Amino acid sequence: AIEEADFLAIDGEFSGISDGPSVSALTNGFDTPEERYQKLKKHSMDFLLFQFGLCTFKYDLTESKYIMKSFNFYIFPKPFNRTSPDVKFVCQSSSIDFLANQGFDFNKVFRNGIPYLNQEEERQLREQYDEKRSQANGVGSLSYVSPSAAKCPVTIPEDQKKFIEKVVERIEDLLQNEESTSLELEPCTGKVDEEERKRREQQKQAKEQEELKDAVGFSRVIHALANSGKLVVGHNMLLDIMHTIHQFYCPLPEVSAFAVFLILLNLAGNVLGGRLLDTKLMASTQPFKDLINNTSLAELEKRLKETPFSPPKVESAEGFPSYDTASEQLHEAGYDAYITGLCFISMANFLGSFLSPPKNHVSARSQLMEPFFNKLFLMRVMDIPYLNLEGPDLQPKRDHVLYVTFPKEWKTSDLYQLFSAFGNIQVSWIDDTSAFVSLSQPEQVQIAVNTSKYAESYRIQTYAEYVEKKREEKRQAKRKWMEDGWKEADEKRLKTQATPYVLQKKMLFGK
Amino acid sequence: AIEEADFLAIDGEFSGISDGPSVSALTNGFDTPEERYQKLKKHSMDFLLFQFGLCTFKYDLTESKYIMKSFNFYIFPKPFNRTSPDVKFVCQSSSIDFLANQGFDFNKVFRNGIPYLNQEEERQLREQYDEKRSQANGVGSLSYVSPSAAKCPVTIPEDQKKFIEKVVERIEDLLQNEESTSLELEPCTGKVDEEERKRREQQKQAKEQEELKDAVGFSRVIHALANSGKLVVGHNMLLDIMHTIHQFYCPLPEVSAFAVFLILLNLAGNVLGGRLLDTKLMASTQPFKDLINNTSLAELEKRLKETPFSPPKVESAEGFPSYDTASEQLHEAGYDAYITGLCFISMANFLGSFLSPPKNHVSARSQLMEPFFNKLFLMRVMDIPYLNLEGPDLQPKRDHVLYVTFPKEWKTSDLYQLFSAFGNIQVSWIDDTSAFVSLSQPEQVQIAVNTSKYAESYRIQTYAEYVEKKREEKRQAKRKWMEDGWKEADEKRLKTQATPYVLQKKMLFGK
Repeated sequence: AIEEADFLAIDGEFSGISDGPSVSALTNGFDTPEERYQKLKKHSMDFLLFQFGLCTFKYDLTESKYIMKSFNFYIFPKPFNRTSPDVKFVCQSSSIDFLANQGFDFNKVFRNGIPYLNQEEERQLREQYDEKRSQANGVGSLSYVSPSAAKCPVTIPEDQKKFIEKVVERIEDLLQNEESTSLELEPCTGKVDEEERKRREQQKQAKEQEELKDAVGFSRVIHALANSGKLVVGHNMLLDIMHTIHQFYCPLPEVSAFAVFLILLNLAGNVLGGRLLDTKLMASTQPFKDLINNTSLAELEKRLKETPFSPPKVESAEGFPSYDTASEQLHEAGYDAYITGLCFISMANFLGSFLSPPKNHVSARSQLMEPFFNKLFLMRVMDIPYLNLEGPDLQPKRDHVLYVTFPKEWKTSDLYQLFSAFGNIQVSWIDDTSAFVSLSQPEQVQIAVNTSKYAESYRIQTYAEYVEKKREEKRQAKRKWMEDGWKEADEKRLKTQATPYVLQKKMLFGK
Repeated sequence: AIEEADFLAIDGEFSGISDGPSVSALTNGFDTPEERYQKLKKHSMDFLLFQFGLCTFKYDLTESKYIMKSFNFYIFPKPFNRTSPDVKFVCQSSSIDFLANQGFDFNKVFRNGIPYLNQEEERQLREQYDEKRSQANGVGSLSYVSPSAAKCPVTIPEDQKKFIEKVVERIEDLLQNEESTSLELEPCTGKVDEEERKRREQQKQAKEQEELKDAVGFSRVIHALANSGKLVVGHNMLLDIMHTIHQFYCPLPEVSAFAVFLILLNLAGNVLGGRLLDTKLMASTQPFKDLINNTSLAELEKRLKETPFSPPKVESAEGFPSYDTASEQLHEAGYDAYITGLCFISMANFLGSFLSPPKNHVSARSQLMEPFFNKLFLMRVMDIPYLNLEGPDLQPKRDHVLYVTFPKEWKTSDLYQLFSAFGNIQVSWIDDTSAFVSLSQPEQVQIAVNTSKYAESYRIQTYAEYVEKKREEKRQAKRKWMEDGWKEADEKRLKTQATPYVLQKKMLFGK
């Protein structure tokens, strides 16, 4: 389905969203892309992505419609064997309760969920198999290892059971029969010629390969996405992408500012398809922005059926479940992926109306899509609409923004009162004792800072001063870290971690 | 069922066991009761007790049999309202997979689980209700608060809907009809006499009480256990008890050595029934110890049906599900509680055979039970069989035990080799680089310590030296803590936390 598709749509359901602050505190209006990434990494990665929805869309030229195949994968890190990782994940009651109200089937996750391994775990398991095999070859063949070498009771192969049982029976007879004192047993060393040995070896290897495939499990779907080079569409997809990387590829690394960019490049090029497109960002960008009021997935899907948009022609492939958008099954990952795909098709086709002559169908590969590629929507950031995977992020002027600290008893109304002389203001809470306050005029900033100089209960700084202070704190923390004798360890870590991302960057820029 | 019962049996199922070391490392053979408590507290309390089994057993004298009522409670901390705690809990894949294989119904937990509140949460919710009520009384009555005072849209009471709809209709007519310019509405201020107001107030309070009860939810069952003063029987029940306290009573406090004892006293007297009895401990104690090889619950239940024991006569009460021990439903909490009760009855009755004249039925209140009361089995501790809730713990001589540290490459075989001159030894791993080694003769200890003095790769100390070093570390940590200026905070904390336990101790000793 992936191979034949024109584009793919994805969606994930998680066991929770935030194990720290409330979601509103997690997404401050003046987060930088790096800060947002760091917050989500810190507070969201211990949850489990336990349902992955994938919809493939293939355009049928002769019928002028899309053929869709939808998949709902239930995911669970079932331990593969005694030495495999015993994953612990966090559940958030409110998220679980929300999904329960949507009729989510938790038994399917926990009883029948598909296992997965990240790249390092897969490598380790392969090594384990290789080691076992080379050990077995060293002492002949594993099937004929002496029992005393094994740490646990030997399992008798099915085809040898009868033979063994007969021997045991004869020995028991000997022990019970007081008259007999000896017993001659048939030789029982395996007599297998070279050809038979090879055949068995091959059989065993084939079985091991199957076991390995089963253990890698759902990660194989992610690898297939990665190798396809196809456009992958999601709605407000930053968290989906982060979880996908974290769970099926490698734990998200600690990063400094620039590394975020490199990692996300790596992610876009390597882990999920060739290019990403976020329908929430697309709907928030011109020419759609002025036509669409509400960009939540359900509302967007409804809006895009009405003029000036047209409902897309999509049909389920034979043997695949069909979804009815009239009776919503929102928050099943497969359904959400499906309507994300519908939204993308409607918006893509709408762009065709600006061409001369106008076109009814615009393909996922059209140049018209390029402005929307590889930009992930940043939820609730006021002046940076997206995280750019292909270049430096936007650096908005924040010369009208103040950083204000105050006693923890203060409420939003206290801030409105403090700034009542300055007309309209916007408040973005950071924590109990600080917030960003944006004024309507940058010229007012210096007045506000000056008048606060003699205040005792609160303090006002410019956004630039705030950024400089943060940077200085980081520099000092780093210096202290180095002085504490971690320099060597640090260098070692950087050497092993940073290389793949740097290489990846080159590869991508070389394309 | 609790009120009429002669004794109660309980069992819990959890979302995981250990979020740190493996269970074997969690339970070192030379843990002290305090160490074991601290480890379980640190590594097991973030999991959820999500199924609680309760079986009540009432003896029917005329029929000479027990009548049993079994209950399986599915537990889930569903958030009660927007301000209620959004509990996060950890799931361990291996535990979840184990329960899934037993046919555990996760949908019942997450969709229909009964909520609960601990004592502090219940207090806070009561306060919220009280505050709301006194606010409402302050401005007359909540039903008649002006809409502008509310922060969210006003809900129209059912009995006023018709009236409001009619008014809305007439206003819409006015707006659409270009000819009319005014409209006279009927007066709509509520006219309620004092009596009606009181009636409504009472109705509202009754509804609030119901809501509160629902929110306290399963904790009410625990309160009923606590108030019953009945004997509560469990099998290897330390973790069940700790989770029960932690989840439904108060988060387990950080404690110093003696406080463990006080807290567990508090626990025994206050949270669960009057007395606890652990069937695993009972089965491991004389006269049962020599008759019973395997004290795992399933094996114990089987053994206690055979001579010299007799299968107990137990019947389900009318309308209650009956369990069949022939087709096991092991690891459903209600079933496990049931067979725990069966084991207790068999063992209790067996003690009657030593009386003259012998008795077939020994009640849960018999003096013969006293040696087994309030002692919780300590799993895999070599020389301290139980944690004593009613007095100081056993202090075994460990003068044959060595504390050995070594490079992390060492395996058990290296230790056997090192001590090969000393005959039989037992190794209890602490972590990668240390273990306890117990020798068969205490006299060998000094020889081992002396011969190790010039060794470079490993180090041997006596157990006494090890304990003294640990104590010194604790003393230093405490001193540092005090010096760091936390003294004041500490005193405050102790004042508020310690009081109830001390009081409780007096109450219990006074009984």
